[in-house]
Parts: sequence; structure tokens; C-alpha cells
Amino acid sequence: MSETQTSERKSRRGGGRDARRQMRAAGAAGLSAPFITREIAPVDILSEEATEIIEYNAETILEEIGIDFRDDPEALDILRNAGADVKGERVRFPRGLARQLCATAPASFTQHARNPERSVEIGGNKTVFAPVYGPPFVRDLAGERRYATMEDFRNFVKLVYMHPGFHHSGGTVCEPVDLPITKRHLEMIYAHQSLSDKPYMGSVTAPSRAADTVEMSKILFGADFVAKNTVVTSLINANSPMTWDDTMLGALKVYARNNQAVITAPFILAGAMSPVSVAGTLTQTLAEAMSGIAFTQAVNPGAPVIFGSFASSMSMQTGAPTFGTPEPAKVLYACAKLARRLNVPFRSGGSLTGSKTADAQAAYESTHTIIPTVMGGVNFVLHAAGWMEGGLVADYAKLLLDADQLTMMQDLVSAIDVSENGQAMDALRETGPGQHFLGSSHTQANFETAFWRSELADNTTFEQWSAEGAAESNERARKRVAEMLESYQAPVLDPAKDEELRAYIATRMEGLPDSDF
Amino acid sequence: MSETQTSERKSRRGGGRDARRQMRAAGAAGLSAPFITREIAPVDILSEEATEIIEYNAETILEEIGIDFRDDPEALDILRNAGADVKGERVRFPRGLARQLCATAPASFTQHARNPERSVEIGGNKTVFAPVYGPPFVRDLAGERRYATMEDFRNFVKLVYMHPGFHHSGGTVCEPVDLPITKRHLEMIYAHQSLSDKPYMGSVTAPSRAADTVEMSKILFGADFVAKNTVVTSLINANSPMTWDDTMLGALKVYARNNQAVITAPFILAGAMSPVSVAGTLTQTLAEAMSGIAFTQAVNPGAPVIFGSFASSMSMQTGAPTFGTPEPAKVLYACAKLARRLNVPFRSGGSLTGSKTADAQAAYESTHTIIPTVMGGVNFVLHAAGWMEGGLVADYAKLLLDADQLTMMQDLVSAIDVSENGQAMDALRETGPGQHFLGSSHTQANFETAFWRSELADNTTFEQWSAEGAAESNERARKRVAEMLESYQAPVLDPAKDEELRAYIATRMEGLPDSDF
Repeated sequence: MSETQTSERKSRRGGGRDARRQMRAAGAAGLSAPFITREIAPVDILSEEATEIIEYNAETILEEIGIDFRDDPEALDILRNAGADVKGERVRFPRGLARQLCATAPASFTQHARNPERSVEIGGNKTVFAPVYGPPFVRDLAGERRYATMEDFRNFVKLVYMHPGFHHSGGTVCEPVDLPITKRHLEMIYAHQSLSDKPYMGSVTAPSRAADTVEMSKILFGADFVAKNTVVTSLINANSPMTWDDTMLGALKVYARNNQAVITAPFILAGAMSPVSVAGTLTQTLAEAMSGIAFTQAVNPGAPVIFGSFASSMSMQTGAPTFGTPEPAKVLYACAKLARRLNVPFRSGGSLTGSKTADAQAAYESTHTIIPTVMGGVNFVLHAAGWMEGGLVADYAKLLLDADQLTMMQDLVSAIDVSENGQAMDALRETGPGQHFLGSSHTQANFETAFWRSELADNTTFEQWSAEGAAESNERARKRVAEMLESYQAPVLDPAKDEELRAYIATRMEGLPDSDF
Repeated sequence: MSETQTSERKSRRGGGRDARRQMRAAGAAGLSAPFITREIAPVDILSEEATEIIEYNAETILEEIGIDFRDDPEALDILRNAGADVKGERVRFPRGLARQLCATAPASFTQHARNPERSVEIGGNKTVFAPVYGPPFVRDLAGERRYATMEDFRNFVKLVYMHPGFHHSGGTVCEPVDLPITKRHLEMIYAHQSLSDKPYMGSVTAPSRAADTVEMSKILFGADFVAKNTVVTSLINANSPMTWDDTMLGALKVYARNNQAVITAPFILAGAMSPVSVAGTLTQTLAEAMSGIAFTQAVNPGAPVIFGSFASSMSMQTGAPTFGTPEPAKVLYACAKLARRLNVPFRSGGSLTGSKTADAQAAYESTHTIIPTVMGGVNFVLHAAGWMEGGLVADYAKLLLDADQLTMMQDLVSAIDVSENGQAMDALRETGPGQHFLGSSHTQANFETAFWRSELADNTTFEQWSAEGAAESNERARKRVAEMLESYQAPVLDPAKDEELRAYIATRMEGLPDSDF
């Protein structure tokens, strides 16, 4: 090795250590690195041949079978004008058209947070973690399973704000079923805006609620800023197979016309909503996602849009959804590649499980989802923590257990540090055979930040663990949640903006019925 | 796509479905696919530049710092004759010598089982799972933690025999501390030989016990067969850093001279036995493993040998070993590549944890080890199931929970099936937008074997799960262990061989003291 090579190598270093140091130093105040930056290549399990077959077949679906755009005549007009073949509500895309329309979508975009240090890059080699989305139930700090409330919603937003594992405040962290459906979105958006300064997601349950999201975001960020920047990302699920409905299309149009980001996401339990095969599920997912992205670009070329995929497999014996199995992992790795080839950001994965409690099953299944998520190169990760029971339950303990795992992910995808310090040849020379490295100067200089460490794992001896109460991880996590909520402090919000937001909500509430829950 | 292309593609299919069908059909009788065959490329996180640096530095350790071979003058003679520079017990290898000596080691070898259908290929794109090795304690079916006994040992051998997740019976599945150290190896080897027909590991705690292993294997397989074939693989741990002791070297020589396989394994808690960096740990591991492999080849060129690596990281705050963290995962991925470049089989990984019970922590940490193990391309996996508390405890419940996860691994590393059946275009055409796939002919034809399924995960509804007793996965696993042990049936063993083995053991026992436990 020449002197020059050594010198060049010396100047290189992995990003993991710095990110870790930054996270650790600021952990107590809830600061964290704003997103993960992957320094290694994404895992690729899809051969070139398989890739070509799947892309060809997806175009066949779009061309021959078609996609239904339901109860939205305007959507059909937009697609017809973009060159699609529309018959009734069935839309067929001549081979190549959908991919061509997708080409105006940005490969990566910034979603701004009200605290600029929290703004996230979505796309490329970046990964952003957001919490669980959608559960009507919670498992609370007493271990009880019950309907979620607005108080739970606020608690989850606070925890996500405080924990360095999360980059994004998410959206419907749980469904606050104690508020009327017509009104709850206003309090949910306000909770994200006021209790956190991380970026957030918007309402999609009606176009008017998407419009409320945009209006409230204009109050928080300023109308001029929102006109030019993306400040909200929202989840538009398909009714798989091959169907978009008017609610989702309506919300999508509101966001796309305001240059706000949407995720167009096939939602698939393979075997029920897609064929009972990995390649078939990939093909359908690609076709559906392309149709959604193409529609978004037809509405507003250049609007930020994320290729979404939620793919689980169904137990073909009981009909139950299953999680953490190898088939969805393969869909995930392969679908990430299909999205990269489409040159758009990708959303998938999370910490998914069908377990009822935060037991070993929950952790096995969650880890078998989150590792492919991170190693496969997902850009936006919904359900990164807290998901339980196939999405029916948001679990306080599991939110923290999963989030603890998320804090290791920057290290996992950082390049191995081969700087002179990383090589540690001085330590090896200083120590030598049969000695230990604890006292070496290299160890002393590096031990603080050398290794990731868990906040929740117990690595003490059996004797110490027993003396301290023999708490399993679930119990330790609940205790920590209680401590965090106790110590929560809201990020400062300009009182004038706060007042304006409350006034907007009050006015809107007056105009809405509250009969339905 | 041309007709020809389609036709060619039709003839291809993934190996996962067939392996799964085979495993499922034979599961009850304890039969399984004899090993995992990886169809996708191993995950590679080590850049070419980093690879060169680490290989260069490992040669620097071997050349400048050297490795201690302690209390074994014969080993020093062997190495001196092979070209090494020996001063006292310090052995230095001129740059390139160790790698050159390693070149005679086979890239892959067969370890024969007494049931030929259980024989395993170790190396290349194959992965073999063996259970936990070494714990003096067990956590039993009552959930109690206590010293392990010979009865526990037999139980673990039976469970490993019956479970399709394991390819190999392992070695010291727990330490039977109710038998004298001097004699227990005889009963341990006999348990593997008689209660299972999967391949097994041998004793390494003294050269005489390695010799007993070889003698008993000659009885089981026939002396002629053993002279020409590998029937036992044994674990030779280094005293890291950079030290081999006479006990391990003595056992190694016995096995190598009998053409039996050894794993030469640096055993490293990074920060204590190696530098507090990934690259430094890799460098030291490579140097130590190469010194062990080179010695094996100097003893008997061509003897089968496995590049071993056990690398965990130490908590730099408490001194406790930690598991499931990102640094050991990176060591594992990278070390697998270093072994491939040395063209020898690789052993590492497992389902490792520092947790005291089979809780969420245990499963998170185990999965963060076993996925890199499988995706990184490890060939021989010790501790693939049952390991608890940093290796102090063999846990009955976790043995089964981990093993259940192992049964998915063939699927995870199979190529995505893009045969015509895998593509499922007929199902997509038949079903179409808004319909479900449950009744399609493709689903009907494939549902039995389409998706991996867990034997232990509970995917029922909360209501059903509650009605059935709300058992967590730990409890479900214990119940299943009891059922399995109840239904165990030993594989048939030739009574003459059995008698000869018992006679050998009886004779040896007479000649050995039994004072020490």
C-alpha cells in the first residue's frame, strides 16, 4: 500500500459515528439526526431477468386489464386527457404511458418541518422513520387493550417527538374514537403541529379534510412558504386489486394541486388482494403504484409522490394476515428496486406483527420486517414502531421497544470506518497476544461512541436483573414511557400562530355535524 | 417479449417451494431438507478498498505482531517447518505465508450423518443450522433457571432431531454438570449418536476426548468410512487476542490428522478482546482465523477446516457483553466476505441475546443476528437456536421459538419464482379490479405451499386468542416442547453398534477418575 493510498484512506470515515454522537448528545432534548443516510448499496435480490419480466407484466396489467378509478368523473377526464384509454371507470394505459407520466415525479424531495433542523429528505439513499398509523385500539400502560382516545393520540405524538428513533411525527398514530369522525382530523393535525416540531402527515378521509390540512399548514408555515414547499406527506391507499376510490382520489388531488406529497400505496394481503405468489404480488403492486403516480403527475406534473407498498401475506389455512414472513420480505427488497428503477421515493415496511402483546413473536416478526425495510433501501417508513395485532392496536410499550431498535439503523447502513482510527493498528500493536484492549489509548479515545447501545435492553447479570425485579422488556418499556410522558416539554410555538390555529379549528368545528363517531 | 423468452422463463423456478413442500410433508417424522441452499448473492457491505486494507493489515498482524501458540512445542515445530518465524511461543508468518498455507483447505466438504439423507454440505452457497453450544444452565419447562443435567442434554438432542429447522445435532447443547468432566463427553457423544441421526460435533476439552470422539465415530460409521470421510466437526476457539492454547491445539491435531473437520474460531467481545472498532475487529479475526487454518493445513494439508468468527461487542459503560447490535452484524457480513476470498467455509452468527427470558429483547437481538447470518452467507451456524443470557443458558422455549424462525430461511434466500406459475398473470386476468383472489384457480393450485408458515406464531383474532387462554409465545413454545418430547421416537440404531458403543464407554469410564465435576 503506498503512502498516498494510506493518506487518502485516512481522510475517509463512516457517517455512523458522527450521527450517533449527535443523537446521543441531544437525546434527552428529543433532538436526533433528521434522517438515516445509507452508505452501503441496498440489498438486491431481484435478478435482471426477473426485473424485466415483472416490469413487462405490470405494463400488461395497465394495458390489458386496466385499473378502476371509481366515482370520480374528473379523475377519468384527467387520465383521458393524459392519453389513457377510459371505458366506464376502467382506465387502461397504453404500454409505456404510465412510466412516461411518472417521469415528471421528483426522485427526492424535502418535507419541511416547522423546526428546520427536523426537515426530512425523502428519496435517494435516505430513510425516514414515522410511527404506526391507523389503529382504533391501544394497549396502554396498564397493559390493557381498549379503544384509543385523543389523549392517547397526544401521548403518542409526544413520545415520537421526544424519541431520537423517529424522524417524522406520522399521521393517524391512533384513531381518537372519542371525537366525531367529522372533526377529529382537526385535533389530530393540531396535535402534530403543536406538540411536536417534526414533520407530519395529513388527513385523507375526505377531500375537505385534506383541504383543512393544507389550510392549517399554511397558518403554521405561512401561505407563501406552503405554495413553494412541501410541508405535508399523506397516505393514499389503493383498494387493491387495481382500484382507486373517490375518497382517496379526492384527497390526492387536493394535495397534488398544492404541491404537497402523497404516497400512492397498494395495500395487499397476498393471496386475497393479489395472487398467491411473490412475483404476481410484485407485478400488481408495480402496476397499481404506477397508476397512482401517473395520475398524480397528470393532476400536477412535478408534484412530490412516493411509490407505496404494503404487502403482507395471508395465512392460506385460516385467512388471517401474517407478518414477518419471508414472502413480504422478498416483496419489499424487490419492490424497492422497482421503485428505484422508476426513480421515485419508496415507502414500505415497518415493524409489523400479528402478535397480541409485545412478546417474542412481536419482536421476531417486527425485526423480520424492519431489517429488509432498512437494508432494502426504503425511503419513508410508516409503522416503524408501535404497530401491534395486524395494525388494530397501537402499543405504548412496543412503540418504545421498536423505536429503541430504530436508533441502531444509521450504524447498520454506515460504511465500515477504515480511517486510521477505524483500522486500530496502533491498538493491536500496543496490546498484542493474550492482553486485553480495555486500557489501550485507542479504546480510551473511542469507547464513548464506538458502539451503538440500546436504552431498553438489559445486559446485566442474571443476579443483578433478578435483584432489580426481573422485569421483562415489555415492563421496562412501560416504565420508561411513563417517565418520558412525565418529563415532556412542548416545543415553543409562536402564540399568534397557535391562536390562529385554534380559531380556525373553532370555526370549522361550528360548521360540522358531530353525530357520527 | 418473444415466445422463446417466455418459454425459457417458464422452465425456471425457485427452490424455496420445493424445499418447503419437502419439509412440510415430512415435518412430523423429523425429516427436513438437509441444508439451506442460497440462490441469491450474499449481502456485501465491505468495499473493495476496505477489503484490501483489512487483508493487508491482517498480514501485518501475522508478520509483525505474531500469534502465540502456547504450551505446545510440537505445534511450534510444525509451524517452523511450514516456514513461520518462531521465537519462544510467538509465531510470525512472513507476509503471504498464512494465506498460502490456507490454500490447501477445501472450499466445501461433506459432513456425513449416519442417515445419509442428513449429510450436510458445509461451504459454498449452503447454510447448516446447529443448536446452542456450551451453556452450563438451562431454563426449563417450568420457566426455572437451574444447572443443566444429562437429561436436559438428551432432551435438547431429541428436540433438535425432531425439528425441521435444524440440520445438525450440534455439540455441547448444554453442559451436563451432573456428570464428571472427565466422563461426560462419552455420554454426550453417545446421545448425539443414538438419539439422533443428524450430524454431530465432537469433544475438544482434551486431546484424549477428541480421540474418544473419533473412536466412537469409527464404531458408528466403520473405521474405513471414517478414514476416508468427515463425520464430525468440532469447535476450536482461540483465546483472543492472538493466542491458541494447548488444549485446543491438541484437540485440533487429533481431528485434523483423522481428516475430521475443525472450526478455528476467534472468540471476541470487541472492546475487550479486540479493538473497539469494526475494522480492527475484522482485521484481528482474519489474522487469528488464518493462523488457525494455516496450522490445520500444516498438520494435514487438505483437512477440512472452517473459518470461524464469534464477535459480539462489549458495553463500554458496564463491561457486559451485548448482542443483536449493529457492529457485530457488520463484522458478520464483512467477515463472510473475507472467508469467501480465502475460499474456505465460514462459521458465525446464530440467534444470540443477552436477555434473561424469551421476551421481546431476546427476539429482537436474536433476529438482528440470524438475518445477517443467513443473508451474509454463513455456512455453519452454531447457536442457531436456544441461546440465552449471553450463552450461559440453554432455554427450552427459545430453542423452539428460534427454530421456528429457522424454517423460513430457505424461502428467504430462494430466488423469486418467475416461472409462468410464479408470474400468475392468469390469476390477474381471471380476477381483475375490485375482486379477490381466494377462489382463483391459481390460488387453489398453489395455496398449500405458496407461503411459509410459522408453527408457533399466533395470528388469530384478539378475541380467539383471549378465549384460548391469552398465551404469549414463550408459553406456547413450552407447551409444544412438552408435546414433542412426549412423542419422541429414536431413529433406529443397529443393536450391534449400540452394544459396541456402550462397551467402549464402559471400558473408558473405568479408566477415568470421576472426582471433578
